[in-house]
Amino acid sequence: MLKIGVDAMGGDFAPEAAVKGAVMAVDAIGDECRIVLFGDEDRIRAVLKAENCAADRFDIVHTTEVIEMGDHPAKAFQQKTNSSIVVGFGYLAKGLINGFASAGSTGAMMVGSMQAVKPIEGVIRPTISTVAPTVTGGKVLLLDVGLNVDCKPEVLAQYGIIGSIYAQAMLGIRNPRVAVLNIGEEETKGNAQSKAAYELMKESEEFNFVGNVEGSHLFSGQVADVIVCDGFVGNTLLKTVEGLFRINKALKIPETPFWRDMNYEYVGGTPVLGVNAPVVIGHGCSSALAIKNMILTTERCAQTGVTAKLQNAFKN
Amino acid sequence: MLKIGVDAMGGDFAPEAAVKGAVMAVDAIGDECRIVLFGDEDRIRAVLKAENCAADRFDIVHTTEVIEMGDHPAKAFQQKTNSSIVVGFGYLAKGLINGFASAGSTGAMMVGSMQAVKPIEGVIRPTISTVAPTVTGGKVLLLDVGLNVDCKPEVLAQYGIIGSIYAQAMLGIRNPRVAVLNIGEEETKGNAQSKAAYELMKESEEFNFVGNVEGSHLFSGQVADVIVCDGFVGNTLLKTVEGLFRINKALKIPETPFWRDMNYEYVGGTPVLGVNAPVVIGHGCSSALAIKNMILTTERCAQTGVTAKLQNAFKN
Repeated sequence: MLKIGVDAMGGDFAPEAAVKGAVMAVDAIGDECRIVLFGDEDRIRAVLKAENCAADRFDIVHTTEVIEMGDHPAKAFQQKTNSSIVVGFGYLAKGLINGFASAGSTGAMMVGSMQAVKPIEGVIRPTISTVAPTVTGGKVLLLDVGLNVDCKPEVLAQYGIIGSIYAQAMLGIRNPRVAVLNIGEEETKGNAQSKAAYELMKESEEFNFVGNVEGSHLFSGQVADVIVCDGFVGNTLLKTVEGLFRINKALKIPETPFWRDMNYEYVGGTPVLGVNAPVVIGHGCSSALAIKNMILTTERCAQTGVTAKLQNAFKN
Repeated sequence: MLKIGVDAMGGDFAPEAAVKGAVMAVDAIGDECRIVLFGDEDRIRAVLKAENCAADRFDIVHTTEVIEMGDHPAKAFQQKTNSSIVVGFGYLAKGLINGFASAGSTGAMMVGSMQAVKPIEGVIRPTISTVAPTVTGGKVLLLDVGLNVDCKPEVLAQYGIIGSIYAQAMLGIRNPRVAVLNIGEEETKGNAQSKAAYELMKESEEFNFVGNVEGSHLFSGQVADVIVCDGFVGNTLLKTVEGLFRINKALKIPETPFWRDMNYEYVGGTPVLGVNAPVVIGHGCSSALAIKNMILTTERCAQTGVTAKLQNAFKN
């Protein structure tokens, strides 16, 4: 039985949105999995009751504190020992749950990822990624999307390994095409960082390197399944596309499946990759739907054993 | 009488698209301006005839060579002395024309900008920019979009000056809000480059610095009128948005004015800023419509005297 931990106190609309999201996820998640809610038990039970959902469909771990968005992440992680995030990471580190998801403080989630579950040995820098749709109906994995904003080329090259394994396990893509985001297709194009990353990656036997990919082909599906970039660029791209999604909404442009899947509510959160357990971070403003999809991503990480696959890859 | 030079041999569909674009521009451009076409005179006259346009509406400067996309830009600029681009830059440097536009070799256009018309004294690095629509019906200027891919903070800070002057002169925005593209709004966010640029720019009295802007607000019109970034990031953003524009087309999403203005055909080319004369570069694949709008941008640069304004700003 896999157990998926969910921070019921995380996000701007917690615990309502978080618990409602868990209720939406519980049917989809299957019998071989169970959701463990971390948070104020009375408040969790109240939401479950309002949702007409039997409380025994979940495990509930009562916690008394909440790490707020305004808290200093590292300090709060140290001091608020009975917060939903700290208790959740305690369970995760001990193997009492098989994954942990929260739409709460991103900073605290990263502190927990690095300190409680720790980077996989051999991984220079864990990373955060996003899955985006392609116009051909497929998926593309973009990493890093904001964790490491001054990446050394060696770090980008490792993202190739991490991304390739994730895309195989989670997106079902065989032999994923891995590319470096760049301003031209030619090997000689780019800034110092992308050129050095290209040099390292073209030697790799650990993934299927296809060269550079330009912004114009991010979502075309024609060039790459895994796109590695610096966290500054990836975060900017992610937010730009989110901004365009909102503009489309404001302009009342009819929604297509492609643009729908650009919506963070359908993306399924941001997995932290390269640490020793599945951790998924959600938008602070997460709706119940966003929470549901974040939980499903976490469950899928646990089901596919992507963490073990990553650990194996870095064993040598 | 202002004279606007146009490379009739530049672009994948030259001379047809270039000359047709000039024909489309000639009515819009007004009597106080004249278009000077550089290229093979017979071929230019043939297209004008096919378009039922009197050849005497243009000046034609006959040239015998063409710098091809595959040519090495610097070498070709030195060797093909009777090419449309080299002859055009010769006219521009001598003041025989007041601006020069081409959809031909971007590399050769940059060589001409740097060697023939030269950077404005005091400008560390000339830059290329793009004008994009905002959802509020306004415009935003993004620079650099691909020339300098490893910008020092001092260079980004100068982009603030250059962008502010351009936005005032060309977009009619009084006291433009200038921001640094970044991954967070707070002063402490970002990579080493953006943090250092913020430090320099917040001291500036030469423009209205409003701090950081995130990708989500690039096109919202709510934060900034001028957005400065490294050429790697700007080029990637530009190409990503172009890719999304093409995806919208492929998905048959009804066109809105906002997305229409994202189309390079309406953008009006990419002005080279920080050199001693108006130079505008077009997409290699430019249609006649794109050429027309590129010519109108060049004419507007000449009309507004934006080059002199930039020269004045860097005099001190």
